[in-house]
Amino acid sequence: MWNEQLKELKWWGWGEVDRRFPLEQRPHFWPHLRKLLPVPEKPFLFPPRPEEISLPPSRLTDPILRELHAILPDSHIARDDFMRLVHTYGKSYRDLIRIRLRQFPRVPDAVLFPDNEDEIIQILRWATRHRIAVVPRGGGTSVVGGVECVPAAAHQAVVVMNLCELRRVLEIDPVSYTAEAEAGITGPELESALNREGFTLGHFPESFHYSTLGGWVATRSAGQQSTRYGKIEHMVESIRVITPEGIWQTPPLPAAADGPDFDQLFIGSEGVLGVISRVRVHIRPLPERKYYTAYLFPDFTAGVEAVQHIIQEDLLPATIRLSDPIETDFVFALRERPAHRWQQVVQEWGLRWLAFRGYSASRRTVLILGLEGGAERVKWQQHTIHKLIRRYRAYHLGESVGQNWYRHRFDNPYLRDELLNYNLLVETLETASDWSRFWPLYEEVRAAIQKAYDQLNIPGIVFAHLSHVYETGTSLYFVLLAVPENGKELEQWAHIKRAASEAILKVGGTISHHHGVGLDHRPWIAREIGRPAVKLLQQIKQSLDPEQILNPGKLIPDLEDE
Amino acid sequence: MWNEQLKELKWWGWGEVDRRFPLEQRPHFWPHLRKLLPVPEKPFLFPPRPEEISLPPSRLTDPILRELHAILPDSHIARDDFMRLVHTYGKSYRDLIRIRLRQFPRVPDAVLFPDNEDEIIQILRWATRHRIAVVPRGGGTSVVGGVECVPAAAHQAVVVMNLCELRRVLEIDPVSYTAEAEAGITGPELESALNREGFTLGHFPESFHYSTLGGWVATRSAGQQSTRYGKIEHMVESIRVITPEGIWQTPPLPAAADGPDFDQLFIGSEGVLGVISRVRVHIRPLPERKYYTAYLFPDFTAGVEAVQHIIQEDLLPATIRLSDPIETDFVFALRERPAHRWQQVVQEWGLRWLAFRGYSASRRTVLILGLEGGAERVKWQQHTIHKLIRRYRAYHLGESVGQNWYRHRFDNPYLRDELLNYNLLVETLETASDWSRFWPLYEEVRAAIQKAYDQLNIPGIVFAHLSHVYETGTSLYFVLLAVPENGKELEQWAHIKRAASEAILKVGGTISHHHGVGLDHRPWIAREIGRPAVKLLQQIKQSLDPEQILNPGKLIPDLEDE
Repeated sequence: MWNEQLKELKWWGWGEVDRRFPLEQRPHFWPHLRKLLPVPEKPFLFPPRPEEISLPPSRLTDPILRELHAILPDSHIARDDFMRLVHTYGKSYRDLIRIRLRQFPRVPDAVLFPDNEDEIIQILRWATRHRIAVVPRGGGTSVVGGVECVPAAAHQAVVVMNLCELRRVLEIDPVSYTAEAEAGITGPELESALNREGFTLGHFPESFHYSTLGGWVATRSAGQQSTRYGKIEHMVESIRVITPEGIWQTPPLPAAADGPDFDQLFIGSEGVLGVISRVRVHIRPLPERKYYTAYLFPDFTAGVEAVQHIIQEDLLPATIRLSDPIETDFVFALRERPAHRWQQVVQEWGLRWLAFRGYSASRRTVLILGLEGGAERVKWQQHTIHKLIRRYRAYHLGESVGQNWYRHRFDNPYLRDELLNYNLLVETLETASDWSRFWPLYEEVRAAIQKAYDQLNIPGIVFAHLSHVYETGTSLYFVLLAVPENGKELEQWAHIKRAASEAILKVGGTISHHHGVGLDHRPWIAREIGRPAVKLLQQIKQSLDPEQILNPGKLIPDLEDE
Repeated sequence: MWNEQLKELKWWGWGEVDRRFPLEQRPHFWPHLRKLLPVPEKPFLFPPRPEEISLPPSRLTDPILRELHAILPDSHIARDDFMRLVHTYGKSYRDLIRIRLRQFPRVPDAVLFPDNEDEIIQILRWATRHRIAVVPRGGGTSVVGGVECVPAAAHQAVVVMNLCELRRVLEIDPVSYTAEAEAGITGPELESALNREGFTLGHFPESFHYSTLGGWVATRSAGQQSTRYGKIEHMVESIRVITPEGIWQTPPLPAAADGPDFDQLFIGSEGVLGVISRVRVHIRPLPERKYYTAYLFPDFTAGVEAVQHIIQEDLLPATIRLSDPIETDFVFALRERPAHRWQQVVQEWGLRWLAFRGYSASRRTVLILGLEGGAERVKWQQHTIHKLIRRYRAYHLGESVGQNWYRHRFDNPYLRDELLNYNLLVETLETASDWSRFWPLYEEVRAAIQKAYDQLNIPGIVFAHLSHVYETGTSLYFVLLAVPENGKELEQWAHIKRAASEAILKVGGTISHHHGVGLDHRPWIAREIGRPAVKLLQQIKQSLDPEQILNPGKLIPDLEDE
């Protein structure tokens, strides 16, 4: 049955098999991109068909398998090549390019589908007994290598634990505004259950359709409305985790002074300390009104100042998304083809008029502003923010632009699949810092990436937006587009990634605001959190997972002996 | 010099030596209290003079002292009886009654005043070498035994580390709205530094004048405006901790996905894992407007529903303080004597009129509502809340009542000192739960306390208020007044405390919302957070403080072998 479900999804790309980014309705995109980058004329790098890939045989021996069959029904143990292939990678650029390059050096030996906590406990015991690495997996949408199988030398095999069967909503408490659900539930499943009772979680990451509650918690995910609803770590009331050493259940409390907050030990633990099985979250009533609109600023500085002002006035918008000038040009280039010729003329004249008024291309910067809540509250926010940002020369583009963004807010990963056909490097990376370090962070990371392109002698661009904004600072999300040398894609990616990461840490940004550490950011984590923190993490890991079977190679680096 | 400063404070009670609660201006208080409880006619239980107390000699031997003198200047090592006495207890009822009963079984062998992090490191090394227990101390205002000296058998001595010299403000960042200060800074010192730059921390616990930044963080403190500004754990950007195993510094970031959040390991660590030396906090601009007012509801149910509605509408008041009917009667009984006879007549008629309108004594319930922020925002909140709570038959008592509360918001501990003169038991305890469990929590804890009074055959009352309110639940703060049997004060207190704690845990409340665990709540903490959490805490302690010198007997219980 998972076979059927998983066959409806692109194992080699994003989302549903029959869905593509409708570039044909966006006539300005390719000309704009080709002005900036020498994109090959024709697509040429396509994903393989599964039958092209030959996998090494599963290393699970018969006696070990017999023990596993005593734990799980046959139908919940998958060892066929397709299922192993589908569970080999996440959804990072590095993952997707390796698929297209037909590189599958490490695949799981089996995929297990436990149905309940007891089965998880028994699987962990079985794996501990035999030193089999276990990679917990929700939607598999990690973009930092968080679900890749990286067994250590000591592991005799590696299995993926797919949690999609743990998808039950256990309680919706309309009095306390909390809900408890199993960790494997996906965004749409959870939201529709909540919506039926008049509630929402308000957590809408770009991966929303496929990622899971447990995955969000394991990686400190942030949704596109996080400015109002918080990151996932702000929504957790309590958490239940199965570790090889036993079950953890934190008490469901709105606040307490009962010692350290252990919720925050497991939030962000990325499957290395235990398998998150249930989460109780803070839910909110469905907003009476959603208002999405867009403003244009003459330049990025004005936009950043306006955004900082909005947030520091505690005006609690749901969405703040400010694109830098290069990204703003892409936003315009991605506009849909108007239905009528006369609309196109109006559009063109509108753009010229904007340029004339001082909102010129390659300087102007667009803000998507979303407000959600009670109608009166939204009205008040709308009025107050409008008044406030006019001081920064904000030009109101209007709701249609905002609504258009809202409608297409989950679509960007589909566009990446299109660009990969041309063997473009399409990477995203996100960081955050306090406001004082915002400009150095923005400038130095861009400069480091451009310098890396130059060193590699490849054409490339980088642009950014602010999308999760706090009173004390902001996240900063970079998008990298480049034309790598054929055959050198992975090493060139690694060079650029290294340059960007070094620049981020140099300025005091975080190596990740909401994607997590995984495999890709692990080399930098000790510098960010400090060696004492890494040592303690290692010791906590040793306590909870003494045989080191859980998600090896992720999050916690090895420290050379001092 | 500390001698001088500390002599200005009541070592045996609350606050400044020459300050008392002005009961003579509140003519209704004693008659009201005497209606409810058989208070002795005259005060008879007074605190001792220091010279009445004879302390055992300090156990620090000469060789050990010589090493200490190599670390700290003489003036920063206090071994005289007065300083040891002053650092023996915190400010709980149990502490203050033991002082009045002249019980000093355990006193520190010395009090150390490090001036910087290097001295702290060296003191911890010295203490580790000699297995000397170290009790870190900020303002010493713990009400749960958090600063009491409870050495284990293995400790050859115990010293208090008073952090009052670490009181520097290191940075105020007006761009990022953050500030970093040393942990020993008191509330007024930090606030006035921030105020001079136009900022506030917004953290005003009842202990504000004496408690410290480090103490707040160590205990997960909550201020009276926490509904808007958050508990202290929501304000911390980064933290610096000196452990016997080294220095920890968490990265100052608005948010991140860099693994578990180690800030939240040290927040609430109550001095058992390390000495908090610096904290960077989120600060806010001084509010343009503060609006404090009061409403009356016909009964407690209406008040609770109104409060829940306000908070779940996300209206972000600064202060919400809803007293139950018994407490409401005390609020009225504590009203000041009017300046003129005619004002008194108006007051009396006003009260009668309220009763006639359905707001009758012993049923009505008073809400203190505080709004802080920009003038327009406060105006909007004021209007919206006013409209909303009229549905719950709220009667607007007016700003003078709210402002009166605001003016006297730090005074209650002074009243306790007055009542202790009559040997009344005056205890407070606070818990929290989600809204679904609010009523069982309120009813069962009150019932358990009343039952405990009955079992002890002593007269007593208990009342409560909601003071820190969340969308998912609320804190609940109980005040206990009783007339214990002379000579049995401590055992009767323990009986009542046990009964209340058992009732709290039975219903699923927390053993503490903001006072912390300390000595007094330690017996219950394993039941609240679970045995796996306690075991991990023990292991973390073992990693960071392998010789177990830091604040022994607090927070982390011993688990019998399984």
